[in-house]
Amino acid sequence: MQFGSDNQTGASLQVLEKLVQANNGFTHGYGDDEWCQQAEKDLEIFFGCPLKVYFVATGTAANSLAISCIMDPWEIILCHHQAHIYQDESTAPEFFTGGGRITPVSRNAGKITVGHLENYFRHMGNEPPHTPRTAALSITQTSEAGQVYTPRELAGLCSFSHDHEMDVHMDGARFATAVASLDCSPADITWKSGVDVLSLGATKCGALAAEAVVFFKPEIAETFVHRRKRSGHLVSKGRLFGAQFVGWLKNDHWLELARHANGQARRLVEKLARFSAITLQWPCAANELFLTMPAKLSTLLHDKGAEFYEWPHHGLPAGVELSEDEVFVRLVTSFVTSDEHIDQFCELINEFFTTGVK
Amino acid sequence: MQFGSDNQTGASLQVLEKLVQANNGFTHGYGDDEWCQQAEKDLEIFFGCPLKVYFVATGTAANSLAISCIMDPWEIILCHHQAHIYQDESTAPEFFTGGGRITPVSRNAGKITVGHLENYFRHMGNEPPHTPRTAALSITQTSEAGQVYTPRELAGLCSFSHDHEMDVHMDGARFATAVASLDCSPADITWKSGVDVLSLGATKCGALAAEAVVFFKPEIAETFVHRRKRSGHLVSKGRLFGAQFVGWLKNDHWLELARHANGQARRLVEKLARFSAITLQWPCAANELFLTMPAKLSTLLHDKGAEFYEWPHHGLPAGVELSEDEVFVRLVTSFVTSDEHIDQFCELINEFFTTGVK
Amino acid sequence: MQFGSDNQTGASLQVLEKLVQANNGFTHGYGDDEWCQQAEKDLEIFFGCPLKVYFVATGTAANSLAISCIMDPWEIILCHHQAHIYQDESTAPEFFTGGGRITPVSRNAGKITVGHLENYFRHMGNEPPHTPRTAALSITQTSEAGQVYTPRELAGLCSFSHDHEMDVHMDGARFATAVASLDCSPADITWKSGVDVLSLGATKCGALAAEAVVFFKPEIAETFVHRRKRSGHLVSKGRLFGAQFVGWLKNDHWLELARHANGQARRLVEKLARFSAITLQWPCAANELFLTMPAKLSTLLHDKGAEFYEWPHHGLPAGVELSEDEVFVRLVTSFVTSDEHIDQFCELINEFFTTGVK
Amino acid sequence: MQFGSDNQTGASLQVLEKLVQANNGFTHGYGDDEWCQQAEKDLEIFFGCPLKVYFVATGTAANSLAISCIMDPWEIILCHHQAHIYQDESTAPEFFTGGGRITPVSRNAGKITVGHLENYFRHMGNEPPHTPRTAALSITQTSEAGQVYTPRELAGLCSFSHDHEMDVHMDGARFATAVASLDCSPADITWKSGVDVLSLGATKCGALAAEAVVFFKPEIAETFVHRRKRSGHLVSKGRLFGAQFVGWLKNDHWLELARHANGQARRLVEKLARFSAITLQWPCAANELFLTMPAKLSTLLHDKGAEFYEWPHHGLPAGVELSEDEVFVRLVTSFVTSDEHIDQFCELINEFFTTGVK
Repeated sequence: MQFGSDNQTGASLQVLEKLVQANNGFTHGYGDDEWCQQAEKDLEIFFGCPLKVYFVATGTAANSLAISCIMDPWEIILCHHQAHIYQDESTAPEFFTGGGRITPVSRNAGKITVGHLENYFRHMGNEPPHTPRTAALSITQTSEAGQVYTPRELAGLCSFSHDHEMDVHMDGARFATAVASLDCSPADITWKSGVDVLSLGATKCGALAAEAVVFFKPEIAETFVHRRKRSGHLVSKGRLFGAQFVGWLKNDHWLELARHANGQARRLVEKLARFSAITLQWPCAANELFLTMPAKLSTLLHDKGAEFYEWPHHGLPAGVELSEDEVFVRLVTSFVTSDEHIDQFCELINEFFTTGVK
Repeated sequence: MQFGSDNQTGASLQVLEKLVQANNGFTHGYGDDEWCQQAEKDLEIFFGCPLKVYFVATGTAANSLAISCIMDPWEIILCHHQAHIYQDESTAPEFFTGGGRITPVSRNAGKITVGHLENYFRHMGNEPPHTPRTAALSITQTSEAGQVYTPRELAGLCSFSHDHEMDVHMDGARFATAVASLDCSPADITWKSGVDVLSLGATKCGALAAEAVVFFKPEIAETFVHRRKRSGHLVSKGRLFGAQFVGWLKNDHWLELARHANGQARRLVEKLARFSAITLQWPCAANELFLTMPAKLSTLLHDKGAEFYEWPHHGLPAGVELSEDEVFVRLVTSFVTSDEHIDQFCELINEFFTTGVK
Repeated sequence: MQFGSDNQTGASLQVLEKLVQANNGFTHGYGDDEWCQQAEKDLEIFFGCPLKVYFVATGTAANSLAISCIMDPWEIILCHHQAHIYQDESTAPEFFTGGGRITPVSRNAGKITVGHLENYFRHMGNEPPHTPRTAALSITQTSEAGQVYTPRELAGLCSFSHDHEMDVHMDGARFATAVASLDCSPADITWKSGVDVLSLGATKCGALAAEAVVFFKPEIAETFVHRRKRSGHLVSKGRLFGAQFVGWLKNDHWLELARHANGQARRLVEKLARFSAITLQWPCAANELFLTMPAKLSTLLHDKGAEFYEWPHHGLPAGVELSEDEVFVRLVTSFVTSDEHIDQFCELINEFFTTGVK
Repeated sequence: MQFGSDNQTGASLQVLEKLVQANNGFTHGYGDDEWCQQAEKDLEIFFGCPLKVYFVATGTAANSLAISCIMDPWEIILCHHQAHIYQDESTAPEFFTGGGRITPVSRNAGKITVGHLENYFRHMGNEPPHTPRTAALSITQTSEAGQVYTPRELAGLCSFSHDHEMDVHMDGARFATAVASLDCSPADITWKSGVDVLSLGATKCGALAAEAVVFFKPEIAETFVHRRKRSGHLVSKGRLFGAQFVGWLKNDHWLELARHANGQARRLVEKLARFSAITLQWPCAANELFLTMPAKLSTLLHDKGAEFYEWPHHGLPAGVELSEDEVFVRLVTSFVTSDEHIDQFCELINEFFTTGVK
């Protein structure tokens, strides 16, 4: 009953097999090897366009390195109040940018909207060099609230941003589940919508540790190799990343994994729907459920071995206040979530409500 | 008719005289001179307690250096949404702290309240090292909206902060006008209320360029001399600052200057009260007025040579929306503001409304 | 004939097997898993003392994070002129320390000596805060010139350093080959000699990407978790590192691999000895050979498929000057270097000299 | 008998008068005032070319800000081993550049030579992004050893630098004494020789706190205003600097002051020449003397009230070793050094040697 995070699994079998296969023989170090070259080609096919691609081990590294390429230390990047880069990556954005600023603009919303950006620009001061210039926007796809931006929404945000001379970064830690949810192409929600640089995460959806920073606008990638090296993110045996991506991309393996995760989330939603004391706080669009439930139920489930996290209240929709005996939690499904886990979990909940074990 | 800023004047005569006097003779460099030593003693009398004091040329340097002593690069300092350190000092706090974060908590309020802090802690995540720890609070006295924190309010904020293991910084760029307004002692609104480190600004109230970083808790000052040196803020001919502070403090000169500035602000408030189309958006507590007025009036006043600035809308009280033909402006009085300037300014306004020159 | 670097191989079979084994099942993320816990226990046995251990993916990350824990941004760390942290890791030390300084003290020597340190302190200025304080020493074991520090030499360097209030870091990217060369225990050349923090590299000697930062003095580790997180080096699926170290340490696997590498280096030395135009510039103590050879020979070997690098001239011993038709090169052996590769390589050299193909 | 430093005086009378004069009336803040505008025009005349000029309070700020405009954080700036930016400004260069590196190339020499640069490039590695790129050179005029670079020497250094895609910074803390010594124009030893950006110091030669960063190549100045603001070096009452420079430049006042300082240094040299136990270690070219003398004499002079500093041994010429009863000291003359001070100082020395008071 692991619904804690999609990082609690190992790699998928196909990804692991490629890793084992790549282990053989000599290659050049630092990413100058045939596995990385193959992965780069595969990613160009994946996105349907020429790319600059660089691999790193963590989402935090991918995000922060990407961001540091599109803003100066005296500039601001906008993001959602719940953005991973703002809430869960320590002060990595500030570190990598040399002291740039990250400013949230979308409190209590499921996604950033153009309205949020307009509101920001309406109220802020504009007296450089006293006030820092706003240089970039970071969007998370799938969003922090488990929502999915449509191509149209993204095009609106990117267009507004470009009009204001801001570059657009997408945190795609759960990019695959967004594509699976939208039934679109990777291109549709990236460069075709105006995204300039993407952190493409394979780790949460089938890899062991494999993230790609994908530049759709090559001129902003110029300093990347220096930034990656001096932050210690240039791995010497680069095949580690190349092999994982080759395995992840082959025969739309990533999509199959993402569809499974999303499907299991929907299954969970459907089975929880009949419990009126459990409220889905955001519609489930991909592989995450954000729920309020009785605190005693949460305790019972944890006692019985279920894994999931209480979630900070900044993740609640506007106006929602919890009663004292309620908790706000997140459930995450993954490419390995089985029907049995879901059934067992729901059975425990059923028992709780029917037997009155409160 | 200069109401633009209290930094548009030179030094007061008494401050200038000391500077000229201090120019003579040999002294050691880097603050190891009799003028700085005298200023330090005078400041201990001013505050009525032992101190660690260091001088710098700008408020931004004073604030950022002070802040860098009370937080680590992976920590957060809270402040008001309109705080000078957040809105008007570029990304200096991020630079000096090595990439720490500054988080505003008081949108559309005249001052920070304990309620704002409680609300912040209620909603934020708390999973170190993923979420940055909240390490400090910065309060501006006189506040960004021209309001003055009472000793009781400060004690409440400091007590809450210390209970949460946060140190408290006060940005005292307009500290003198706050003391004048409250008719209290400097001690009452600093260490007696729990403030740990103060940026004491003389520049805006009579000096030419003289700011003191005053540590009431000596252990947090340990790294200061290194931080000041490597940021280029250790002036070689230190008498420049020592002399100004000696002049500023002598015979309560600072208080006399602050009282004049505050008195002229009140005079301006009284004379503007009769114009119903001009609305004071915050009560005037010290030497700043925040007003809405007809845009055409603002244009006329500027055309006639009046100096004042339009103010960003984040400085408006909650719920206030401007109509299209209104502007939000700030008027600042200083130690040199004359009755004539005020009368002339109000006369122009009177003409505008009576002659219908719109 | 791969003598380019010990990072051109994959993982050893035993390491790979553990990685595959660890891939199964759910674990907590971020290093809170049984593999990391096992690896930590194994490392305590390896070193024979209690430890604070943290895992990262690269040597640059391990070194820079370790260093950032033992110096402030206004301080200096000393190292060898050829140190990897000085010559080959971009400005990572400066980045991670927030702008600290790295100062080399051992030009044209195979190892740092106490004499180098004494000479440094004799000539430098000492006027804080104007002159930065010297806070730390970094030693590389096996050294940059392929030399090995004896326990006695290390004890001398550490003792001198501690007397000068400097902490000691050891860059152990090739730590295993040093232990194999000295036939000592890991403890003998670390904490028993006075080393405070070690970057223990498994990658170059059998792992795929696995480095441990090992603190022998726990109080200097206090900020590590924050530094690792905000630099993007906290991997979510931590088993990646735990499993590799478990495999690497089991049944002295690391020692077996290191002994093979060293043995093959000795074999190479012996076979090259008869070529008088090839000069070993430093005695071969572990798994690296630093040679001068005719430029035409180097070209021929490369043309025939041999892999090795020309080496920067700062790596030459004092007084050695190359003639125009000579090159300075490095040959590295590894845990997979076969007799056949060595024989084939030497056969080509033999042909060069005997057939006069110049 | 003050020979400690040229920062132990106040401002010259003419500079002070302008400061007092500038104190009157309203001006805009932050350098947008008539005094700064006048100073900028005067500097364009001084250098005989169009310029970008910015004022700050300290030499450290001027140097570090200038340097940060010509190198990236993953790059290197070369300088003399004794350079003020390397020896006396803490780690300011690293701080302002966001962690760039400063590498000295001229041990035990009076000035940097092209040979030093050639030697550096011959030995260093060149494998970006592993090895940091060398991006800039900093020259100090008057040099750290009191030497003066001729226009021809500068042209050689700048030409070599530009050929290697390095920009050239000049630390002109004692620029005026160099011009006085060479009897050339300011242009001759700056832009006409190829210098790209100059820190022009007035403080050590007649001002109280006034340094100008002068860009001869405008495109490298683009980020300066942001860097100055976020480092706290944008002074609000900018007339402080403008007025000092206007006073300093008027009627070649700076040159008169510099000539006096240099003349008194020569006078001191001449009077010391007859004491065989005192050795001038570098020829005196401007206003500094670097001497070895008996330790007992140094003690006596200090006891009698003379001010001067012992100097770190890295400042000695190559091959010079002190005997145990000798000390290495620096004597500095300034625009206020009087004949009486010199005579009194030399009289004490004479007594020491003649009366045998040892």
